[in-house]
Amino acid sequence: MSSAAFDFQVTHREGLARRGELRTPHGVIQTPVFMPVGTRGAVKAVTHRQLAELGAEIILGNTYHLFLRPGADLIARAGGLHRFIGWDRPILTDSGGYQVFSLATMRRIREEGAEFRSHLDGSLHVLTPELATDVQAQLGSDIAMVLDECIATPATREAARESMERSIRWAERARARFRRLAADPSLVPVTNPGQAQFGIVQGATFPDLRAESVAATTAIGFEAYAIGGLSVGEPPEVMYEVVAHTAPLLPDDRPRYLMGTGMPDDLFECVARGIDMFDCVLPTRNARNGQFLTSQGPLSIKNARFAEDLAPPDPGCGCYTCRTFSRAYLRHLYMSGEMTAATLNSLHNLHFYLDTMRRIREALVFGTFEKLRLEFHQTFSRRPRI
Amino acid sequence: MSSAAFDFQVTHREGLARRGELRTPHGVIQTPVFMPVGTRGAVKAVTHRQLAELGAEIILGNTYHLFLRPGADLIARAGGLHRFIGWDRPILTDSGGYQVFSLATMRRIREEGAEFRSHLDGSLHVLTPELATDVQAQLGSDIAMVLDECIATPATREAARESMERSIRWAERARARFRRLAADPSLVPVTNPGQAQFGIVQGATFPDLRAESVAATTAIGFEAYAIGGLSVGEPPEVMYEVVAHTAPLLPDDRPRYLMGTGMPDDLFECVARGIDMFDCVLPTRNARNGQFLTSQGPLSIKNARFAEDLAPPDPGCGCYTCRTFSRAYLRHLYMSGEMTAATLNSLHNLHFYLDTMRRIREALVFGTFEKLRLEFHQTFSRRPRI
Repeated sequence: MSSAAFDFQVTHREGLARRGELRTPHGVIQTPVFMPVGTRGAVKAVTHRQLAELGAEIILGNTYHLFLRPGADLIARAGGLHRFIGWDRPILTDSGGYQVFSLATMRRIREEGAEFRSHLDGSLHVLTPELATDVQAQLGSDIAMVLDECIATPATREAARESMERSIRWAERARARFRRLAADPSLVPVTNPGQAQFGIVQGATFPDLRAESVAATTAIGFEAYAIGGLSVGEPPEVMYEVVAHTAPLLPDDRPRYLMGTGMPDDLFECVARGIDMFDCVLPTRNARNGQFLTSQGPLSIKNARFAEDLAPPDPGCGCYTCRTFSRAYLRHLYMSGEMTAATLNSLHNLHFYLDTMRRIREALVFGTFEKLRLEFHQTFSRRPRI
Repeated sequence: MSSAAFDFQVTHREGLARRGELRTPHGVIQTPVFMPVGTRGAVKAVTHRQLAELGAEIILGNTYHLFLRPGADLIARAGGLHRFIGWDRPILTDSGGYQVFSLATMRRIREEGAEFRSHLDGSLHVLTPELATDVQAQLGSDIAMVLDECIATPATREAARESMERSIRWAERARARFRRLAADPSLVPVTNPGQAQFGIVQGATFPDLRAESVAATTAIGFEAYAIGGLSVGEPPEVMYEVVAHTAPLLPDDRPRYLMGTGMPDDLFECVARGIDMFDCVLPTRNARNGQFLTSQGPLSIKNARFAEDLAPPDPGCGCYTCRTFSRAYLRHLYMSGEMTAATLNSLHNLHFYLDTMRRIREALVFGTFEKLRLEFHQTFSRRPRI
């Protein structure tokens, strides 16, 4: 696939894993890629400069949050999200759907869209596929997502089918609106004419529903496709199975984005199953809760046994935090409630994620990804070892 | 004055203002200097690396906080405060007295020392001149302060005299202890043998008490001297008068440290009256409260009229925040409660303070300090103009 602003080329393969380059209006992204989450136009506790130093090539913005505050009109008047937040690299925005389901104080799903009350002030809104498209056109992200329905899990087959089918009807409307905005930019201020729109595959854990969703979503035709409805509490093995089943059904020449995943070992397992793009709040959220994600596994800095431990959080790590500070000091900062704890912990966790992706990309170039994947599992454990 | 590790040389003068170099065991400080406050071993919301990039040459640590958590013994076992916090430039520690008076849930002043209950857990402690000296020896700061009594203001002449005289008796005991530790390092773990100890002049706003305090404190003999008991709520003019009266009484060959000051214009006025060293929480605390200190004066980013203002906080400023972000975005971050707001605002305010001191030092070299002082007052106002 190829267009002026948006282009994806797979440069290397190993099994189902792919090494590629994704071109966007704000620059080229090396895939597989991890996207730090910048919920309200900022990745929590780190500055844009720190993100750039960490090697972040793209960040994610949450449409729900930005729509409610400061508002899409204001951001459009400022020239779009890139200019408003002072970040000139690529940005992906979600549709707002996930936060409507997880944050809004009230929500009601109708065929028209998702009615909800703001968690900030209780104001009533209806997020339709068209509005989610318009808002993202105003934000001017490089990659916009269609509005989809996120259902509670585990879902019955009946509920999963109904929701998946509604998501497809919504995707059709979102794509129609996206095309209309391209043809008539006077409808809303389109701040990034090169924006791409990704469809989202749903279908919970039912292989046939996933296959149906892939067929219908690719039939509509988007610049690329995401797998939604995973990392919502199911065991990792179930997620891996759904990804293994779904990813190969998606067009080989388009990037594949697994939404909201995950733990560091998930990155390896899903790259191995053909995923190119990831996002997750886990590295930054866990950092704020005092958890370091290390090459050995999670480390909770709150633990009293670190009170006098002068080793760095992850002895093998080359990040600023690990090169400079001890567990004892970082525990002191955390226990004292110093904001710097959130910053230093986030810098490490983001470095760990971004560096892991760098190593995955390098291994894919040299054909050593499978070896790296096995090595990673030999030291990394989801249960704290240290 | 001169010793192996601690040395002060005045290199330029303009009126009473001095440009100098202060040598400490952890490096040379260019004076006049502003010292960011790193209360609990961290300057709030900024990393050490950001501080170094801002040009901070020395930071301050609060003995009260570090004594209570994580404890001086633990820090000494880690090799001292520099090693514990990963900051290899100079550090000044206060005596803990000020926080006993401002933070402790109970305090009782006896001749022996200040009895207080920890604001953290209510535990009972007695901070004596000897203990404050011992704790700072364990911390291993480059400059330690004697324990002095901080009285409520405005104070009667009677109370001011009594307190000033007690501070002198405490200073004698602190100096005796300091000398004893130097002679017998087995008493407590001394982590920085090159540590200097500063005496503190008290006497509230009474010129004769200030003069008496100077005479008695210099008679004891310290590496250098601070002026305490100011910036505690008195009008700026009163502070300037006390400084103008007191600073010239202090030895000309020693650095003079004005504790806890102040607003940006205070820096100019007190340099003009012979002060060499400053510390204040104002740039970082006000930053966390949404106030930018700019060349024009304070700017409260909360103000609704900044909601769509795409100008930087201080158009003339070259800091990272002003070069990268708009008032509109910074307001959005602040109103959203993003931690990054505290960081970006603190980076600006610290840059403004440190850059102002750089300009003062440069002007002193070229003999243009008086001109710079008048220019500064022409644009800077304590009342918000923008």
